[in-house]
Amino acid sequence: MAEKNSVNKPKAVVLLSGGLDSLTCLAIAQAEGYEVYALSFDYQQRHASELAAARRIVEKMRPAAHQIMAVDLRSWGGSALTSDAIDVPKNRSIDPTEVPVTYVPARNLIFLSLATAYAEVLGARDIFIGVNSVDYSGYPDCRSAFINAFAEAARLGTCACDENWRFNIHTPLQKLSKAEIIRRGIELNVDYSLSVSCYQADSEGRACGVCDSCTLRKAGFAAAGVQDPTCYRK
Amino acid sequence: MAEKNSVNKPKAVVLLSGGLDSLTCLAIAQAEGYEVYALSFDYQQRHASELAAARRIVEKMRPAAHQIMAVDLRSWGGSALTSDAIDVPKNRSIDPTEVPVTYVPARNLIFLSLATAYAEVLGARDIFIGVNSVDYSGYPDCRSAFINAFAEAARLGTCACDENWRFNIHTPLQKLSKAEIIRRGIELNVDYSLSVSCYQADSEGRACGVCDSCTLRKAGFAAAGVQDPTCYRK
Repeated sequence: MAEKNSVNKPKAVVLLSGGLDSLTCLAIAQAEGYEVYALSFDYQQRHASELAAARRIVEKMRPAAHQIMAVDLRSWGGSALTSDAIDVPKNRSIDPTEVPVTYVPARNLIFLSLATAYAEVLGARDIFIGVNSVDYSGYPDCRSAFINAFAEAARLGTCACDENWRFNIHTPLQKLSKAEIIRRGIELNVDYSLSVSCYQADSEGRACGVCDSCTLRKAGFAAAGVQDPTCYRK
Repeated sequence: MAEKNSVNKPKAVVLLSGGLDSLTCLAIAQAEGYEVYALSFDYQQRHASELAAARRIVEKMRPAAHQIMAVDLRSWGGSALTSDAIDVPKNRSIDPTEVPVTYVPARNLIFLSLATAYAEVLGARDIFIGVNSVDYSGYPDCRSAFINAFAEAARLGTCACDENWRFNIHTPLQKLSKAEIIRRGIELNVDYSLSVSCYQADSEGRACGVCDSCTLRKAGFAAAGVQDPTCYRK
């Protein structure tokens, strides 16, 4: 854990989608004493309300900086989140062994690569990402084996490889259930009304209540015994 | 080597900057029988004439498709190629053990990640990148150790990891000198007047003649005994 209240806090890049997990991750990085540089992506995702949520989170949590980077993953589609030709599934039972159509090809590989570049420019060696292999084990890029392999590629592919250190990819939510993530956030006074998880929230940030992400979020709050502050359309 | 003249040629993503190396790489992929999907990046590079060169190359070489993807690496600068605050060095003697100021943090990590996503959407398992560790060994992201680590991260971070295969990252130029690259291209009838290597070519594609990239290009043509078709301003 980094030293708290240090004048020269260590810098960390935190991937901030605007969802529940990344909000919790940011709160954890701050609680661990890092000076946080939040990084969000405008990847032409169907759920652009995520970015509005990221901005609300930044306004409240006040990281040292917030970069919103445009990467047009709609260029080639391939996911329900980046192609209008693929529908977001609703009210389905979630099979953790199956890769869902909301999987965006190589998304975390891309996002971590960009976070690595930002970290290298900042002189930061710590990167936080809110991946989780409990609820989302159907996404290959959320697994520990990938994160570890990425850290090695990042070390070798940057000037960091000339020094005696490596990038630390922090995944504090990796082994937590959604309920445990929420409880950890509540301990840190996280205001979950700031975050949007829904894959198809409307322009006012109201969640659909029926997509996989809403289903997991609702179940997580119920299991945590915490009132869900989300505004659902149904 | 993939089968030539096959109706169902295997698909390959080829990173095409518009420079001499990537042009040669594209020609090699085609000669090896791949159906080529070229991928270029508009990363707000100082040398935007690269993209014009990439378009000229595509017009002549006719790959199956050409994607130009915008990724604004100028968001955080950190390189002479993405920041106006850092000058491109000229007429310097090149030290292969030193990381030059033209190094763009984690650039190949980012480009390969995006190529991996494109390959996954296409169902392609082959990616070509014109990295070279002879002339550019100062760039950490051109080394074989990085490429191998990246291939493993890409396998684990995509749906490919559920099958019994991995992404092949082809680096046919890895161990060639600039002169050898040029000779290989000439064998394949490559028209090098299509490519631009200069870090600060003007709007008409004329090269400065004095930056590292021009220095290496000039020396390469001289060593290969091939007439340099580049239009230099000096």
